Amino acid sequence: MTESRESRSVDCLAFRGGAFVRTARSVPAEQAVAISVGGSTHAVMMATPSHLEDLGIGLALNERIVETVSEIEAIEIVETEAGLDCQIRLVPEKAATYVARRRQMTGPVGCGLCGVESLELAGPVLPRVNAVETIAPSRLVRAIEEMAGAQDLSRLTRAVHAAAFHLTDGGMVVLREDVGRHNALDKVAGHLARQGVDPAKGFITITSRVSVELIQKAAMMGTGLIAAISAPTELAIAEAVAANVTLIAVVRGEEFELFTVPERMEGAVDAAATLAMARA
Amino acid sequence: MTESRESRSVDCLAFRGGAFVRTARSVPAEQAVAISVGGSTHAVMMATPSHLEDLGIGLALNERIVETVSEIEAIEIVETEAGLDCQIRLVPEKAATYVARRRQMTGPVGCGLCGVESLELAGPVLPRVNAVETIAPSRLVRAIEEMAGAQDLSRLTRAVHAAAFHLTDGGMVVLREDVGRHNALDKVAGHLARQGVDPAKGFITITSRVSVELIQKAAMMGTGLIAAISAPTELAIAEAVAANVTLIAVVRGEEFELFTVPERMEGAVDAAATLAMARA
Repeated sequence: MTESRESRSVDCLAFRGGAFVRTARSVPAEQAVAISVGGSTHAVMMATPSHLEDLGIGLALNERIVETVSEIEAIEIVETEAGLDCQIRLVPEKAATYVARRRQMTGPVGCGLCGVESLELAGPVLPRVNAVETIAPSRLVRAIEEMAGAQDLSRLTRAVHAAAFHLTDGGMVVLREDVGRHNALDKVAGHLARQGVDPAKGFITITSRVSVELIQKAAMMGTGLIAAISAPTELAIAEAVAANVTLIAVVRGEEFELFTVPERMEGAVDAAATLAMARA
Repeated sequence: MTESRESRSVDCLAFRGGAFVRTARSVPAEQAVAISVGGSTHAVMMATPSHLEDLGIGLALNERIVETVSEIEAIEIVETEAGLDCQIRLVPEKAATYVARRRQMTGPVGCGLCGVESLELAGPVLPRVNAVETIAPSRLVRAIEEMAGAQDLSRLTRAVHAAAFHLTDGGMVVLREDVGRHNALDKVAGHLARQGVDPAKGFITITSRVSVELIQKAAMMGTGLIAAISAPTELAIAEAVAANVTLIAVVRGEEFELFTVPERMEGAVDAAATLAMARA
């Protein structure tokens, strides 16, 4: 039984060739993680318990609790029996804004906030991404290969997602793996903020499907292009159009599909002109 | 451009053989869905907009808003510009309990509920599943094949999960597909409740990885066995032990792995005796 912070080997029975045999499998660690801001809980999620400062900072940025990492005065990971608490303390002037904003965003229990009002609050108003970086198809294919080569936890467990950030004129800056794909991208955002890397100077690759939340995070980061191994949902495409994010998906070897904003991919604009690609 | 309730064909550019060509792809529909109970929002999620009554009922049961479907007086799906609102009205005596429970569960904004307290509330106390049904390996393999054969939306979009329920001594009762794997299982639970099928009389198959929330839903349903195509997380295994749920995962053709409670799988108990399989 080997153990690490990110994975653990468990005994199990394999049914192979008509009989049960003893074997072992590495499974990803998963813990309840609370993100608390100024002593109040902002969110509780299941996450892979590594790079939790990155997670807290990235989530605080992507959910606009803060605009810049400098507005976070301190961050501390506290281990409890029930899970891990990522405690964020904001600079005083921001702390006051946060309390006021929470009061506005969420009604108290039993206030009669109806489903319709909650639905309207559910979709954040996204910034329009103006990043001007462009990449060639070959650069994208290389980035996907780099991501695949660095997915150590996935190779071990086959049960985690990865997100990575690549500089347009450089290499892969960071890769993060997590049982939750949203967490993986928040961890990437947190790392970039701590290292002072501008998310507009590169692009994101992810292993998972593309749901609307991942587009929202890319837009909040100000990154102009996100490429996924798997397929996008309808709402993710619509949100990418609205936020002016280039969405690439279904990457298979040297082939891929481009769904929105072809201007950031070399060679795609002329082809896009031949079809009624959705535009904001 | 073809459209249905569950999927939609979108134009895109495919990069193939070194050039961009025009093509189309079917993507799953995805909408913000609110579940509201007695006029207050219980949850807001992104979901595939089909079988929403199943989703509302299944979630109400799996999160113990109600104990039985008869405690739901009415359910109505209301379309709004921002999304779909699944409005549940409880029978009067239950409605009062629900309001009291919500007051207890969730503190008002700014109450200083800290991350640690929230973490303790995050893990529901699970019932211990006492279902005594057992199945043979061949029955499981057939069920996985049946599920695969019925995944129409997945075949079209490659971007949704499926969950299904199978009677031990019968066939597949229901299959539901959704962009969210939790939603897919809640929809299955809702269908069973409406049809009066006892979830203890069969087993669940799912296409996705097994996270802790899926084990919690199986336990809440009272189903003794859940089998997944993909791998489990560490916490899912621990939770399956605690709730006495048989967890099978990594199903590949006629082979699979069994992680917990071998008593419900024919031929597994003797093999399990040879290893230190975790027990509650």
